[in-house]
This record gives sequence, C-alpha cells and structure tokens, in this order.
Amino acid sequence: MRYLITFSYDGTNFSGYQKQPKLRTVQGEIEDALKKISGGLDIEINSSGRTDRGVHAINQKAHFDLYKKVALHKLKMALNTYTNKDIYIKDIKIVDNNFHARYMVKKKEYIYKINIGEYNPLDRNYIFQYNNKLNIIKIKKESKYLIGTHDFSSFANKEDKKESYVRTIYKIYVKKNKDILTIKFIGNGFLKYQVRNMIGALIEVSNTNKSIKDILNQKNRKTFGKIAPPEGLYLSNVEY
Amino acid sequence: MRYLITFSYDGTNFSGYQKQPKLRTVQGEIEDALKKISGGLDIEINSSGRTDRGVHAINQKAHFDLYKKVALHKLKMALNTYTNKDIYIKDIKIVDNNFHARYMVKKKEYIYKINIGEYNPLDRNYIFQYNNKLNIIKIKKESKYLIGTHDFSSFANKEDKKESYVRTIYKIYVKKNKDILTIKFIGNGFLKYQVRNMIGALIEVSNTNKSIKDILNQKNRKTFGKIAPPEGLYLSNVEY
Repeated sequence: MRYLITFSYDGTNFSGYQKQPKLRTVQGEIEDALKKISGGLDIEINSSGRTDRGVHAINQKAHFDLYKKVALHKLKMALNTYTNKDIYIKDIKIVDNNFHARYMVKKKEYIYKINIGEYNPLDRNYIFQYNNKLNIIKIKKESKYLIGTHDFSSFANKEDKKESYVRTIYKIYVKKNKDILTIKFIGNGFLKYQVRNMIGALIEVSNTNKSIKDILNQKNRKTFGKIAPPEGLYLSNVEY
Repeated sequence: MRYLITFSYDGTNFSGYQKQPKLRTVQGEIEDALKKISGGLDIEINSSGRTDRGVHAINQKAHFDLYKKVALHKLKMALNTYTNKDIYIKDIKIVDNNFHARYMVKKKEYIYKINIGEYNPLDRNYIFQYNNKLNIIKIKKESKYLIGTHDFSSFANKEDKKESYVRTIYKIYVKKNKDILTIKFIGNGFLKYQVRNMIGALIEVSNTNKSIKDILNQKNRKTFGKIAPPEGLYLSNVEY
C-alpha cells in the first residue's frame, strides 16, 4: 500500500529536510518513526522536494509504502507519537501505486516573511529580521517580472547542476500587514535556493536602482548580493 | 543615574526571569551584559516583576543604576550586543532616582494565546496547543466575573505567601482570530500563576457547568483542575 502524508515542521532544530548520517533531519525522523511502526523495516519516504536547514513547512507532502494495510487514523497517531513536537502529521491517505510525491508535483507554493519593523526576539526563527524599511511599491512592481516561464539561472545555486533552469511562476502575492511583509510564490517547481535568492534580489532592488528584469536576463547569480536567510521561508503547499 | 529599560524576550530557552545560580535567566543575562558595559561592576536590575519559565515578554520593564552617564543609544546598542538574540532592549531612558520599576507599577497587561484548532508545530512554544473546541461565548461571559477588585486566592499559588491576595482587574478582552483565541488582562498587578490559573479555570468552565463566580467566591485553588501552560503567556505591557 502506498500512503501520502501531509505534514508541517518547524525547521529551526533540524539540519534540513534530507536524511544525513548523524544529523537530525525531518526525513530521518519520520523514517525512524516508520521503522518502529513497521516492526523494524527500513522504509524510505519520498517527499515533494527538500527544504534547506532552517526552512519550515506548513504543508509538505511525502509518500511511502507499507506491506500491510494500517488504519489511517492509527497510522497518523503512531507517526505523531514517534516523532518530536516540531513535526506534525496533519493528514494521511492511500494513493495509487503509481503515485510519486516528487515527480507528479503540479504546483508548489512558498511563503517568505520579512519583518521591516523593529527586531522581535519572539519571531527570530520564523520571520527574517530585516528591520529596515523597504520600498513595497517597487517590490510589488518588480516581482511581476518573475511571473511566467523563465530561465531562473540568476536565482539558482551554481553547484546544483540541472538539465534545465527553466521554471514557471504562476502567481506572486505581496502583502504587508503592520511591519510584516509576506511574499507568496506559486509555481510548477523551484530550483534550490530560488525563492531565497528571489527575495534577496527583491530586497536589493527595493533599495537600489537595479531591476529584476535585468537580473533575470543576465542569467548570472553574480548580479546581486545576498541570499535571504532560511528562517523566513515556508513550504506552504504542494498540489498534484 | 537611574535608567529604565523596556525589553522583550522569548522565554523558551530561559529558566524564567529571575536570576538563579548556574541557570540561564533573563535577569542574569542582562546583568552579565551590564557587568561588561560597566567594566566589571555588579549591577542589579529591578524589573516590574518576574515571569515564570517559558513565559514571554513583549514589553517588560526594569531599572538599574550606573555611576557614569552613558549616551542612551550607545547603552541600548551595547546591551543588545552583549545579550543573546532571544532578548531585545527596545527602549532606554533616564528616570528619577526615586523611580522604582516594581513598586511604582500602576497597570500591568498580560496576553494569553490558545490554539483551538489543529496542532501547529511552528507555534508550539508561543501558543498553548489546546487543540480542542472551546465555548467562546461562555468564556466571554464568565471572564466578566474576574473584572473588579477581588480576593484572587482561588487563582494563587499557595506556596507564594502574600499579605493580601486582593488585586484589581480593570479589563479583560477575549478575541478569536481563526483558530487562535487571545485573552488580554489589564490590572493593577497579578499574583504568581494568577493569569495561567484564570486561563485554566476559564477553559474548565467552558467545558463544564462550573462557574467563575463560584470558583472566585470559594477562595480555594482546589475548585478547578489544571493551570494553563506557560508558553501561551506574554507580559505585554507595564505602566507607571
């Protein structure tokens, strides 16, 4: 039986999503729970994609196979019992044996949060503490150039070799609520570091006379400075 | 010179506000910073009151004396440099030598946050994960009995011997935003555990036929069950 889980996690105390020896990872922790549930079998989970160290998830998805059929509510309870409090399995369902949580992704949604007001120690792991003014009107305007199908090389990690750096962004929402700026990206998929690089570029563009259009066209990561830090980033939805 | 600081902190990784040997506390951390700033002198800070382990502050206040006059913006920067990221000094000003941050409190304000929806790992240290329904209408109605000048023995910690358990609550606000219930208390002062006990009682009253009026009148902590956990509680303001 193939199962699809929807889960959330606080990335603060994980060394990223992907399993690594001797490090605490989201994948590692869920697989350890499945090993207990299955009586000692090694069960691999396949997620919609990795998230980096410090990045959070509101609705991450992953599939795995169990030889036996387990009642869904019992499996959900067992997974939540055997994982720590910074992971939560929200939903579990049975999917077709051909289903693949990574290869069949149709849409992915990320949220990035920036505090443009005073430093807040209570949000330091959940909202990027930029603590400076931003030109929201310029960010809204410039972000529109990212929408559509583009070669996103300018926002990629050079060490992450890909056959293609072309991705499609369907929608971008920029919303300010008091001192918190929230930027949501909906696309067919995102390159490693792409969202954090787009945020870094938007912040730089906000405060200079650079433009996103130029950065995008140059297909070169060196056209702007900093990547935005991981703590402001949330994988908020995955659709199949 | 007497200085008054306004500061916020994330209580998660502190053993409470009050200094204790060998434990990481808010008071201890600020006093360590002041020792560095003053060139090795031991400087005591006097806050508006303690907060318990795991309790947060949005606007805590404290005073201390320095022999020399230091530029306020430099002192603020130095305090924020020498304390960790979970404390933030928001404001600093010079006050009269007779000023006392604890004895001169006129109003104190606390906020308590409860998640009545699904468990959220991202908020586990900042919002009480009750994760059950509550009768908000009954909570609003019953909370009104707490307003006014009362003997709050029913909500006190018996080990915390006081001359008087009489306090005045001026206002209580109950607000629901999606699945988050926020209850704000404004009073002239609060007993140790009083807010968390009032929340515990309100939750119990919401789900039973008990009443706050009865609990208050009995002047006995044993009339209801659980104290609410610390992570939902914020000291949000202090007025002089």
